[in-house]
Amino acid sequence: MTGPRTGNAVVGQAGGPTAVINQSLVGIIQEVQKYNHIGRLLGARHGVRGIINEQFYDLKRQPTNMLELVAQTPAAALGATRDKPDEEYCERIFKVFTKFDVRYFFYIGGNDSAQTARIVNRIAADAKYELRVIHVPKTIDNDLLVTDHCPGYGSAAKFVASAFIGDNLDNRALQGVKINILMGRNAGFLTAASILARQRPDDGPHLVYLPERPFNIDKFVSDVEAVYDRYGRCVVAVSEGIVDEAGELWAKKVSILKSDSVQKDPHGNIELSAGAGSLADYLAGALRAKCKSIKRVRADTFGYLQRSFPGVYSEVDAWEARLVGQMAVSYSLDADQDGSVALVRLPSTTYTVGTKLVPLAEVAPDKPPFTTVVPDEYINEAGNNVLNSFREYVGPLVGDLPKVGWFEQISPS
Amino acid sequence: MTGPRTGNAVVGQAGGPTAVINQSLVGIIQEVQKYNHIGRLLGARHGVRGIINEQFYDLKRQPTNMLELVAQTPAAALGATRDKPDEEYCERIFKVFTKFDVRYFFYIGGNDSAQTARIVNRIAADAKYELRVIHVPKTIDNDLLVTDHCPGYGSAAKFVASAFIGDNLDNRALQGVKINILMGRNAGFLTAASILARQRPDDGPHLVYLPERPFNIDKFVSDVEAVYDRYGRCVVAVSEGIVDEAGELWAKKVSILKSDSVQKDPHGNIELSAGAGSLADYLAGALRAKCKSIKRVRADTFGYLQRSFPGVYSEVDAWEARLVGQMAVSYSLDADQDGSVALVRLPSTTYTVGTKLVPLAEVAPDKPPFTTVVPDEYINEAGNNVLNSFREYVGPLVGDLPKVGWFEQISPS
Repeated sequence: MTGPRTGNAVVGQAGGPTAVINQSLVGIIQEVQKYNHIGRLLGARHGVRGIINEQFYDLKRQPTNMLELVAQTPAAALGATRDKPDEEYCERIFKVFTKFDVRYFFYIGGNDSAQTARIVNRIAADAKYELRVIHVPKTIDNDLLVTDHCPGYGSAAKFVASAFIGDNLDNRALQGVKINILMGRNAGFLTAASILARQRPDDGPHLVYLPERPFNIDKFVSDVEAVYDRYGRCVVAVSEGIVDEAGELWAKKVSILKSDSVQKDPHGNIELSAGAGSLADYLAGALRAKCKSIKRVRADTFGYLQRSFPGVYSEVDAWEARLVGQMAVSYSLDADQDGSVALVRLPSTTYTVGTKLVPLAEVAPDKPPFTTVVPDEYINEAGNNVLNSFREYVGPLVGDLPKVGWFEQISPS
Repeated sequence: MTGPRTGNAVVGQAGGPTAVINQSLVGIIQEVQKYNHIGRLLGARHGVRGIINEQFYDLKRQPTNMLELVAQTPAAALGATRDKPDEEYCERIFKVFTKFDVRYFFYIGGNDSAQTARIVNRIAADAKYELRVIHVPKTIDNDLLVTDHCPGYGSAAKFVASAFIGDNLDNRALQGVKINILMGRNAGFLTAASILARQRPDDGPHLVYLPERPFNIDKFVSDVEAVYDRYGRCVVAVSEGIVDEAGELWAKKVSILKSDSVQKDPHGNIELSAGAGSLADYLAGALRAKCKSIKRVRADTFGYLQRSFPGVYSEVDAWEARLVGQMAVSYSLDADQDGSVALVRLPSTTYTVGTKLVPLAEVAPDKPPFTTVVPDEYINEAGNNVLNSFREYVGPLVGDLPKVGWFEQISPS
């Protein structure tokens, strides 16, 4: 048996940044530094675009102290891209790989990145060019197939849960209705994480609307009215990806209503963040128009803060993001297959994870479903809330949340 | 000379919560516990409304460990209110004070609260009822008269600066134009704090628009184009309170354009947060329509996160908020006057503050200006940026910011 193929390696980052995507990058850099068979580690600037433009960072030569600082820095240190390469684009990538004697390709990203990895992998195989391709998972949406959860999700979930802890207190202080719009295109995992904010029985979010259930505006209004009648206030978590009974996006409907232009990304996905502010204002406006008894309605859209706020991250998530990077390099040496690194939750009374290498086709399949959604078991029957059992899934990924205090005792007057 | 008047005390919190308003409350509670002449310390639920409804917390009986937890909890632990009492409302407050033998009134809030304190003070004086009224400053807007700065501002400024550090990295990673709308009705202090995010010469925010200068949409578009041409990206900080040349609020203009209803608070102020999401979308839409060369435009509104996010606060701000609470009680014993506690920046090479008691009429005057704005010296000539000299003012109030790392070296291809 011969040792691993000598040659160079390329690493890239793609898609929306997260708080811990650089942990995975640094995990790869550190692990690669252990081995001599990988000559240079080239960091592609802005993902695949950096490859075809031959723009690289020399990552084996970075000082260790800067590596640790980069690891705890949010957003992609190499730069990211939303380019989704087609066959021809992948041919160009492959050409650069042969030019630079690249034998290892680590691509950190979501399911689009897994798809890119898969195409490049096939082209190399067709050309009988020895290339190991490992996809490293990353997404705050937590919607990748196979893996128990995605690095990046725990930290975004911590931001969202923390924000709701504060916002719920703000709403207690000034009362009224508060709507918060959360990220997540097709899956409600991030929105669902808001329930971690509940500590007291009357804490918000009192209502949680996910893309997994159709959103009806009249039902929404009556749901809010019922909570408001009970508590004199109401905090609502709404996914930017909510759809109507016909499956049409509310963010798109609202944009059309307001005659804003609908923005699409290069993958043909509607850029929800482009219309999420309007969705917030629309829902608030609907409540004001239909519930005259509710005096104060406010709506915020958390936006990019959810994925890029520095200093707020989950320790577990940071550790796991580092782990999947390290394991990507490890798998590229030991296993005789390409694939995607998945996290496996081990049967244990305390939270424990392992990793496994999954065939690329399982994470980037030819046919839908391409991504996963919040399982039915976590959503209430009315489709307007997330059950407390979801805490068992998300709690360990988020870890400790800020502690808050309050006064219980009211003196008789 | 006789000692201080024996009797009970009332403390209340008003207006928009901050990250450290409970520090001031706990400062008052702790200081009051030192003295026997104050019998009960009544915490008014939801500010003045709690007084007239006779709903109080008994604050001398709270356990110390809960006090420290409350101190570090954002949002008003007693509940806040936006009620702005008129003469008749203040008469009712005074009636409750006489009923409960209240001789000390500590009111934590902004300039509206100082105004309330002043009216109640006058009614008591007219009735020859001995009452000490002390206003304790609080506002993330930092727009109170006399004081060097306002407790609550430093923590909100830290949130904003941190958010821009992350958002600037996000914008580096995916490029394009990013607009962020910040809180602050008439004063741009909070928006100006975004410049603390700049570390590298090409870091954002690249443009900063304050309410202190008229905002012209065509000028905005050409400003952004110029930055984008230079850096291939642009991060913009915009105050929700920007006005046009005629002094009209853009948030209001946009709401009317989009035929949203314009929301007013009980003080007659337009609720900017109600239309800020629309302002973000409007500005992004204008750029998309007028700059075809710019592919990617996003806009976020930070909203209530700026004042209520738990765990992100300035140490200095927390300490000063505690201090003004403690000093309020101290002044109520020693000085023979009512007033508002102001922070004074002492002449020193290192940042040092003291406090002084200021007459209520100076903080809540009869005639405008009722609040203060960002001084001209900190705003550039073009009116689209904040000068680095502003760091000297705001830096010490914010303290340490999250550290980030990056790669410098690019290998030749």
